[in-house]
Amino acid sequence: MTDVLKNDRFLRALRREPTDTTPIWVMRQAGRYLPEYRATRERAGSFMGLAQNPEYACEVTLQPLERFELDAAILFSDILTIPDAMGLGLSFAHGEGPQFARPVRNAADITKLAVPDMDGELRYVMDAVRLIRQELHGRVPLIGFSGSPWTLACYMVEGAGSRDFATLKTMCWNEPKLAHQLLDTLAQSVAAYLIAQAAAGAQALMIFDTWGGLLGPAPFREFSLRYMAQIVAALKADTHARELPVILFSKGAGQHLAEMADTGCAALGVDWTMNLADARRAVAGKVALQGNLDPAVMRASPEVIRREARAVLDSYGNHPGHMFNLGHGITPEVDPEHVKVLVDEVHAYGRALRS
Amino acid sequence: MTDVLKNDRFLRALRREPTDTTPIWVMRQAGRYLPEYRATRERAGSFMGLAQNPEYACEVTLQPLERFELDAAILFSDILTIPDAMGLGLSFAHGEGPQFARPVRNAADITKLAVPDMDGELRYVMDAVRLIRQELHGRVPLIGFSGSPWTLACYMVEGAGSRDFATLKTMCWNEPKLAHQLLDTLAQSVAAYLIAQAAAGAQALMIFDTWGGLLGPAPFREFSLRYMAQIVAALKADTHARELPVILFSKGAGQHLAEMADTGCAALGVDWTMNLADARRAVAGKVALQGNLDPAVMRASPEVIRREARAVLDSYGNHPGHMFNLGHGITPEVDPEHVKVLVDEVHAYGRALRS
Repeated sequence: MTDVLKNDRFLRALRREPTDTTPIWVMRQAGRYLPEYRATRERAGSFMGLAQNPEYACEVTLQPLERFELDAAILFSDILTIPDAMGLGLSFAHGEGPQFARPVRNAADITKLAVPDMDGELRYVMDAVRLIRQELHGRVPLIGFSGSPWTLACYMVEGAGSRDFATLKTMCWNEPKLAHQLLDTLAQSVAAYLIAQAAAGAQALMIFDTWGGLLGPAPFREFSLRYMAQIVAALKADTHARELPVILFSKGAGQHLAEMADTGCAALGVDWTMNLADARRAVAGKVALQGNLDPAVMRASPEVIRREARAVLDSYGNHPGHMFNLGHGITPEVDPEHVKVLVDEVHAYGRALRS
Repeated sequence: MTDVLKNDRFLRALRREPTDTTPIWVMRQAGRYLPEYRATRERAGSFMGLAQNPEYACEVTLQPLERFELDAAILFSDILTIPDAMGLGLSFAHGEGPQFARPVRNAADITKLAVPDMDGELRYVMDAVRLIRQELHGRVPLIGFSGSPWTLACYMVEGAGSRDFATLKTMCWNEPKLAHQLLDTLAQSVAAYLIAQAAAGAQALMIFDTWGGLLGPAPFREFSLRYMAQIVAALKADTHARELPVILFSKGAGQHLAEMADTGCAALGVDWTMNLADARRAVAGKVALQGNLDPAVMRASPEVIRREARAVLDSYGNHPGHMFNLGHGITPEVDPEHVKVLVDEVHAYGRALRS
């Protein structure tokens, strides 16, 4: 834990300080597109077997760093560990998305929910953070993360993935107090979870609000943004976590960047449907930005990947505060060689942009 | 065809003329939430059997008008009739989305495609339009429609539904000329299709760009918007179709409204993720707006439906040029009584708003 950080580009960019080039990491960089990831998952037997075993989680977290000159590692885990620890029974049916054996549907279900024990049910996550920090030897910083309260609630109430998560939306409209009770319990849990990850050694924190963009503007503020702001405030009140930059990422919520920037977070993730020049104007220098190459570009030819990467870098321009990333997670069919092409181009062109 | 139009609220709003109250229709109003629709579909044997039979298509088009005081009818059909007529072999697997037996993947496939014969393969659509106009007896205007070239191409190249339609995106990046050849053939086909619907009796035309919002800003302009603009221009050059107002609807593309308003269309559809007050500012009085209640609201209680409908009406305000609708199609589990609640509230509050 006391290793000096050898590559601090990512943390410097998060603080909007000058860097020699643009740092890059890739959402879901430890994922199915890597054959070595698939091999470890095979050995682990299941996705949850992989995520809940600190040695396996450490192994797959480090795999992409062996191949590519990435500027950050991100804890390998799932966004749904908190509801699983609350007793909902998370599983991943083969080839399908997440499922909960015991979804949350009514006041009795919601009243029963308690903030999970970070040294109990969720200890495996903190063990993984500690082990990864140790094995990283200060090569790059480690990002800890959580799903947002809104996104966790989407799955908890629906019981599985959904196109529109209308079950939770209906609860928000018909029984707003109940929805707020659920979201408040989740916000407390996410704050405790991220504080514990910080204490275990995470050096930056990210909140994934995958489904915030399904909400209209007023419900987005009331049911998603409000609870992310509550978490950021709780982190700022913690002696240790307050030092860590927080990244908020609401997919499909580009129109809300200005309000999101006012939460006290350090950076915002931006999906690929928005130009970074527009995003910069929207946040008016208050936060750094992370993104935003269309993940589908990774399936195109190397020369297209290079050209589109340069377009993203150009749209941000020669200003501090840009962490390159895809606008959403990398998909399983991407050729790993294409990731090398991307990482190398971002570093080379990022350097050229600064000179 | 010569019946005088008894309710012209919808067409007046499209022209941004004053109306006694706000007109309303509902995307997919002839759909599975209606038991009488399910009964007709049962008799037809399959979805395509329903869509390709003018009598059945007419029957289901009129069903929601028997129940609710809707201000427009929309042709019952599918957005994928054009690629089906091009020989791709459209089917709907039970409980699943559309599938093409012969997807389009390469230059040979694309070069073979020709604009379908509107009096041949697509005659059933024009027959349905003629029959519906006759059976409407001028009660309300009839909307004709098509999928956008981009959205048709998404399905034609992927062969089925997809989360990201990365196959077509990859073609756009790796082989842009080929993608443009496909999109141009589709734009010519859609223009001919809408002109034929106008000649058959449609009184307004709508283009559904369901997947335009999956594109980043530059590709949206190049691969989606450009071809919708080409279609609007072709319609304006047709003696008959030029009289018909055209509505463009790109889901998830709220940031592009200003550019879309410059195509010469009469109105834009707006999904529920954007406030109509912001949308009005974006289009600066150039076009009317259609939308934008979150379809999930229809699953909430009647009092919530009324409150949220009023919020949509308030966000547009007391200005001409608003056609109320959902922000996307109505879903099968909605109680038909809730549609009555919505329609009645929009008319009552729309009247109050004007006084």
